[in-house]
Amino acid sequence: MSSAPQNSGPLRLGIAGLGTVGIGVVKIVQREAALLAARAGRPVAITAVSARDAKKDRGADLSGYAWESDPVALATRADVDVFVEVMGGHDGAAKAATEAALAAGKHVVTANKALLAHYGQALAERAEANGAALRFEAAVAGGIPVIKALTEGLAGNRIKRVMGVMNGTCNYILTRMQSAGLPYETVFEEARSLGYLEADPNLDVGGIDAGHKLSLLAAIAFGTKVSFDKVELEGIGSVSIDDINLADDMGYHIKLLGVAQMTGRGLEQRMTPCLVPAESPLGQLQGGTNMVVLEGDSVGQIVLRGPGAGEGPTASAVMGDVIDIARGFRLPVFGIPAKTLAEPVAALSATPAPYYLRAKLLDKPGALAKIATTLGDAGISIDQMRQINQPGADDGDAIVLIVTHKAAPADIAFAMSQFAQTGVLVEQPVAIRIEEV
Amino acid sequence: MSSAPQNSGPLRLGIAGLGTVGIGVVKIVQREAALLAARAGRPVAITAVSARDAKKDRGADLSGYAWESDPVALATRADVDVFVEVMGGHDGAAKAATEAALAAGKHVVTANKALLAHYGQALAERAEANGAALRFEAAVAGGIPVIKALTEGLAGNRIKRVMGVMNGTCNYILTRMQSAGLPYETVFEEARSLGYLEADPNLDVGGIDAGHKLSLLAAIAFGTKVSFDKVELEGIGSVSIDDINLADDMGYHIKLLGVAQMTGRGLEQRMTPCLVPAESPLGQLQGGTNMVVLEGDSVGQIVLRGPGAGEGPTASAVMGDVIDIARGFRLPVFGIPAKTLAEPVAALSATPAPYYLRAKLLDKPGALAKIATTLGDAGISIDQMRQINQPGADDGDAIVLIVTHKAAPADIAFAMSQFAQTGVLVEQPVAIRIEEV
Repeated sequence: MSSAPQNSGPLRLGIAGLGTVGIGVVKIVQREAALLAARAGRPVAITAVSARDAKKDRGADLSGYAWESDPVALATRADVDVFVEVMGGHDGAAKAATEAALAAGKHVVTANKALLAHYGQALAERAEANGAALRFEAAVAGGIPVIKALTEGLAGNRIKRVMGVMNGTCNYILTRMQSAGLPYETVFEEARSLGYLEADPNLDVGGIDAGHKLSLLAAIAFGTKVSFDKVELEGIGSVSIDDINLADDMGYHIKLLGVAQMTGRGLEQRMTPCLVPAESPLGQLQGGTNMVVLEGDSVGQIVLRGPGAGEGPTASAVMGDVIDIARGFRLPVFGIPAKTLAEPVAALSATPAPYYLRAKLLDKPGALAKIATTLGDAGISIDQMRQINQPGADDGDAIVLIVTHKAAPADIAFAMSQFAQTGVLVEQPVAIRIEEV
Repeated sequence: MSSAPQNSGPLRLGIAGLGTVGIGVVKIVQREAALLAARAGRPVAITAVSARDAKKDRGADLSGYAWESDPVALATRADVDVFVEVMGGHDGAAKAATEAALAAGKHVVTANKALLAHYGQALAERAEANGAALRFEAAVAGGIPVIKALTEGLAGNRIKRVMGVMNGTCNYILTRMQSAGLPYETVFEEARSLGYLEADPNLDVGGIDAGHKLSLLAAIAFGTKVSFDKVELEGIGSVSIDDINLADDMGYHIKLLGVAQMTGRGLEQRMTPCLVPAESPLGQLQGGTNMVVLEGDSVGQIVLRGPGAGEGPTASAVMGDVIDIARGFRLPVFGIPAKTLAEPVAALSATPAPYYLRAKLLDKPGALAKIATTLGDAGISIDQMRQINQPGADDGDAIVLIVTHKAAPADIAFAMSQFAQTGVLVEQPVAIRIEEV
């Protein structure tokens, strides 16, 4: 095609990191050489690889590739056009090698959400200054082509809200708790023994990994600098099986849900446990599968669902980026030039929502009334209220469940602080946002 | 970015067709000029428009644009870079103008599934010979960026199967029949009075529109020439409320489901009513929403869900293509050069599946045995069998429901033909494929 960039020679990859993702990429390139060349318009070849241990058997024939023990050396080789960074880690070697590649004008394809969440702005500016692509489809929601959908497919939209369940381990834990009726601690240990957890489990269950991903989507969606440090983070460690079951009775499921939305007060980013309607696509999501919901002013709501991790899905995302580069596609890293990305306003979430409240009350006359009065004094009105245990039964305490009408997060926080002064609570009550999806 | 194609001037659109989609595009370009320029790297402008009636008030200010009464003249104007074809119709003016645009080396963005289903191969060859882009995201599943996901995002995959519910009117009718317990004819008339049906309703309820879309996805997925004439088409007119209800009792919903898959015998394309598990994403799809399921060897299963029609969603898809063109993205129309697309083998579906069978039997001793024997003789084994009315009750007839184990379509067809000779049937039995999703 005459108007296309002419890229006649092979596109040469240097792959740093030969774990499951790196080896997944090697397998695709080896198995599908003809198909990739037909689609990319030119051959895709691997010229060099890098990993810690050169002698380990990784189940793929690497003998045709140069071996670099230093990923920085790999990144700057003359025979590498695209540096594929699938080492992981938010600084150290991954950062140094990515910086070196971009400085040398090499394109970079990375699966490293932590690196981009921390250094995305500087890396994007460096890439754009050097005419290099920096692509990261594999960093968010695994095999789901969500970066492409948001940056390209929905480029005609003003994005209203982005939501997502983007950590498969957390969703596995929450759905397993519900289906098996098991407490968090038990399922956490199951997940650990199955190898589902990162070496630092807090990256998963603390919401950090999913928060990294949300911060990248938010930058693209709203044209703002990546601001992971502004994501309101709350992990799933405090989600109790009682709340999962009680929410289910009321038609809700609990998810670790990321929400980014632009408001009159600035960008809000939350990665927190939320109730969502059990019948909604997000509510129905089981196990390790990921889901991202994109809402645009013209398109309405688009839902993308697929595997969020694993060799094949992540390698698929890397290869999508590689083929885009081979085809000559170039666009700014976050959809608009990095230097024009806005400084996000640090807005704590103020968007009102209904809340689920659970409180355990002493068996005292007027206890319920005190709770209701406290809410009313905070400006919060009640949509539904249920008492689960009758006072006098068992330990004499009563569980009260409340679903509020839409309330501002600050008003909920104030009410929660006031509950302690009512003198009728057995323990600290629970408040969980109900996201309207 | 130095390696990007330099496109400094505005990208100039000529829009043919000022119905809801065309006006939707006009509104986005007028409202979001700054955002589009930031994302595209250059301004996007409309220079000329064309429609039948120049005087009609369309709710948008068109006074700044040249008016062409002839879309062919519009398509070849010197001040038009991209011909946006949103007139519709599978031949006539839409075809002539698209051909003229491509012959003149103009890029084309079209929402016209019928045109591409019939003439996609010739148009793609013409586009590629002239260095022009021919993009059609809006032609398939409305606002869902599925062409992009398949052609680009999943380009590293060998695609195994593509499925979709891609006609919102049919899905509206089927889900409304189920929720309201109404027969097809009643809901069809409702849909007509609501304006949901094409002027020729058979385009919708006959599965033709959805078949057009499936044939385009199949070409991309499998690298074959568009072959709409090879799609096995069956509309929803024969779906009865009885089958909807009985299937629901067994945990299935009936959908007009498109399936394209490459088999050892060649490409299979079906657009037919199918049972799918009620709990699956496809089974849960309500109303006019569309869903496409993409299955790749590396990525596994990706599910995309969103609005399949309407001003905003379709205009969103058109604008995604326009911005890609503005950014300089060029790729073959169906993902690989049109001249290299394979001739699809005309394979009638032979992929086995379980089937749902419903038969009304005379109240005769041995009637059920004759049905079971006929199936056995055809090599079909039975997974579940239920008798709904007891013989002797009411009219004395019995409804028998059977779910078979996996059976070849030809064996099912043979068994259906043999049933007539058993002498125990009150009426022609029903067989519906159960697609394993």
